[in-house]
Amino acid sequence: MPNAAQYFDLPSPFSLKRGGHLLNARLAFETWGELNSSKNNAVLICTGMSPGAHAAANALDPTPGWWEGMIGPGKAIDTNHHFVICANNLGSCKGSTGPASPDPSTERPYRLAFPELCIEDLANANFELTMGLRISHLRAIIGPSMGGMTALAFGAQHPTICANYVLLSTAAHAGPFALAVRALQREIIRSDPHFADGQYGEGKDVIQGMRLARKLGVITYRSAGEWDTRFGRTPMDSSNHSPFGPRFAIESYLEGHADRFVGSFDPCSYLYLSRAMDWFDLVDYGGSVHLGLAQLQAKKALVIGVASDILFPLHQQKEIADGMQLAGANVEFHDLASIQGHDSFLVDLQSFDPLVRRFLQAL
Amino acid sequence: MPNAAQYFDLPSPFSLKRGGHLLNARLAFETWGELNSSKNNAVLICTGMSPGAHAAANALDPTPGWWEGMIGPGKAIDTNHHFVICANNLGSCKGSTGPASPDPSTERPYRLAFPELCIEDLANANFELTMGLRISHLRAIIGPSMGGMTALAFGAQHPTICANYVLLSTAAHAGPFALAVRALQREIIRSDPHFADGQYGEGKDVIQGMRLARKLGVITYRSAGEWDTRFGRTPMDSSNHSPFGPRFAIESYLEGHADRFVGSFDPCSYLYLSRAMDWFDLVDYGGSVHLGLAQLQAKKALVIGVASDILFPLHQQKEIADGMQLAGANVEFHDLASIQGHDSFLVDLQSFDPLVRRFLQAL
Repeated sequence: MPNAAQYFDLPSPFSLKRGGHLLNARLAFETWGELNSSKNNAVLICTGMSPGAHAAANALDPTPGWWEGMIGPGKAIDTNHHFVICANNLGSCKGSTGPASPDPSTERPYRLAFPELCIEDLANANFELTMGLRISHLRAIIGPSMGGMTALAFGAQHPTICANYVLLSTAAHAGPFALAVRALQREIIRSDPHFADGQYGEGKDVIQGMRLARKLGVITYRSAGEWDTRFGRTPMDSSNHSPFGPRFAIESYLEGHADRFVGSFDPCSYLYLSRAMDWFDLVDYGGSVHLGLAQLQAKKALVIGVASDILFPLHQQKEIADGMQLAGANVEFHDLASIQGHDSFLVDLQSFDPLVRRFLQAL
Repeated sequence: MPNAAQYFDLPSPFSLKRGGHLLNARLAFETWGELNSSKNNAVLICTGMSPGAHAAANALDPTPGWWEGMIGPGKAIDTNHHFVICANNLGSCKGSTGPASPDPSTERPYRLAFPELCIEDLANANFELTMGLRISHLRAIIGPSMGGMTALAFGAQHPTICANYVLLSTAAHAGPFALAVRALQREIIRSDPHFADGQYGEGKDVIQGMRLARKLGVITYRSAGEWDTRFGRTPMDSSNHSPFGPRFAIESYLEGHADRFVGSFDPCSYLYLSRAMDWFDLVDYGGSVHLGLAQLQAKKALVIGVASDILFPLHQQKEIADGMQLAGANVEFHDLASIQGHDSFLVDLQSFDPLVRRFLQAL
């Protein structure tokens, strides 16, 4: 499999918000399109929790990326016009430094010795990458899901770099339902005896804990309405009739998701990124969401939410849109009727594409 | 602790719907009020998955029951007028025969050797109890949550016993979201190494699996809206600062629920009752929900749903109400704005009490 990732060395030491620092940390990143001579056509994509830097096919890696339908020549994020950058998150395990990387002080993986990680740290790493690419001005930052939190943290800390934000199915802070789901996912992973307080093997040992956490994730990423239509009570097509084995199509669907996830994501990366989302609160910047949003000094924003999203519920995108408007930005807000829940930005491109396309074209 | 339960011996063998039978099985049950001389004032309560027979205080056991606010002299289910019966479900572990009971053929607990269990079996056990109490006519059957499925299964199989139904936050069959949640809960329990394919100790060994399953349950029993108001992002009042230990009040709340549940419920009972809910489908009685409901020959029904319920969503109660109406019953349907989700029937008595009270008074 080709490896299209380029690597960017973060300043060393790289200080983290909650204390501690990383030595010799790096980000894996990819780019699409060409930076123009004025260096004013760069667009940064901040990702959700699990994707890597490979958002779309490019010359170095022609395999489809995680947002293939959205990025490319003539697509909504049009690489004929924009120079698109996407990095694997700091703390992740797809090329960037994270808990699975060797700790330079011990030469063994950090695991639980990795310092506490915040969304602000992810944003600062993206900021350093942008500076490292000698780009002092971003045309837009695009952030779906956790990536939207990273975009907000980027703007709150570095308000002069970007004036335009695309915030999809994200939040200025998590509510207690999302906190509860993530706490349970982390506890499920840590309860797997193979997790062994972080002393597991090469990350593939914590199989059952990661499977269960992923299944809970999928339950909160989609929507009951979509599943009613798509699966209903259809029985599973299988001869597996063990007493409590899967018998309904929906169970088989969750199995498939777990199969594809396990082995591709480091358990400790999961814990750190999940907790980072919990900590993030734009209220920390000024005392209210509105004052936090004012720190961004945004000029234009496209904010999209989905009514069927239970993890980042619609009122959270409305809160962002209202706050940015109040802070003086020109805000375009859409509440979509997509039935695929939080994942809609990945699958209901028919709805997201024209809105993102038009917004970027007008910049 | 006083033990108010009386015991009723089921016919032996007691045949189960999916095959197999139980020998010397029994139900633990309690009663409130007096059966009148015409024996026409009996009301049967079918419970949700986890409660026992002790629905309210009575002479033998004055401790508060799980529906204390609803049952008693002058209360909504008025024991001055009704003779109220409530049994612990067949398959449960609070006095009735279930997987934790000794298998007469081996004298060891059944565990996974217990035959597959259906909601219909729970209903038939309640039917036998009713007959055993020499009651040939029930004034009403009241079923919240899984108990509503049991009430429907009772009526579909024994339509001449009862003409009046109170169905609260229940469903004619589960949808894929509920199937997914329950499948995950069962897998979490079975993944606990202490579960050991059912060869665990006295039921208290599977602590972590049961804790995690209960936490997932609580996440689906309440609502995000309630938690936004009640907990928000309030930090936990604690000095426990282990890296991934609980830090938010909502995490502490889930801990408390898990603490109270663990040790009080047998893991295999949980698996069997959970799966029984999955199997249940009123469509099996005639080919559609409406035709299934027509089997009940109900005269009057009170059907209540709650908009914030994600486990038994409102459209499922609407489906029951519409179907019963179509089948000729006089149906009173209410969709309540209670914010406590599926658990509203247990906690928002202010809303449920007057509706149940008025319905029962008019019978």
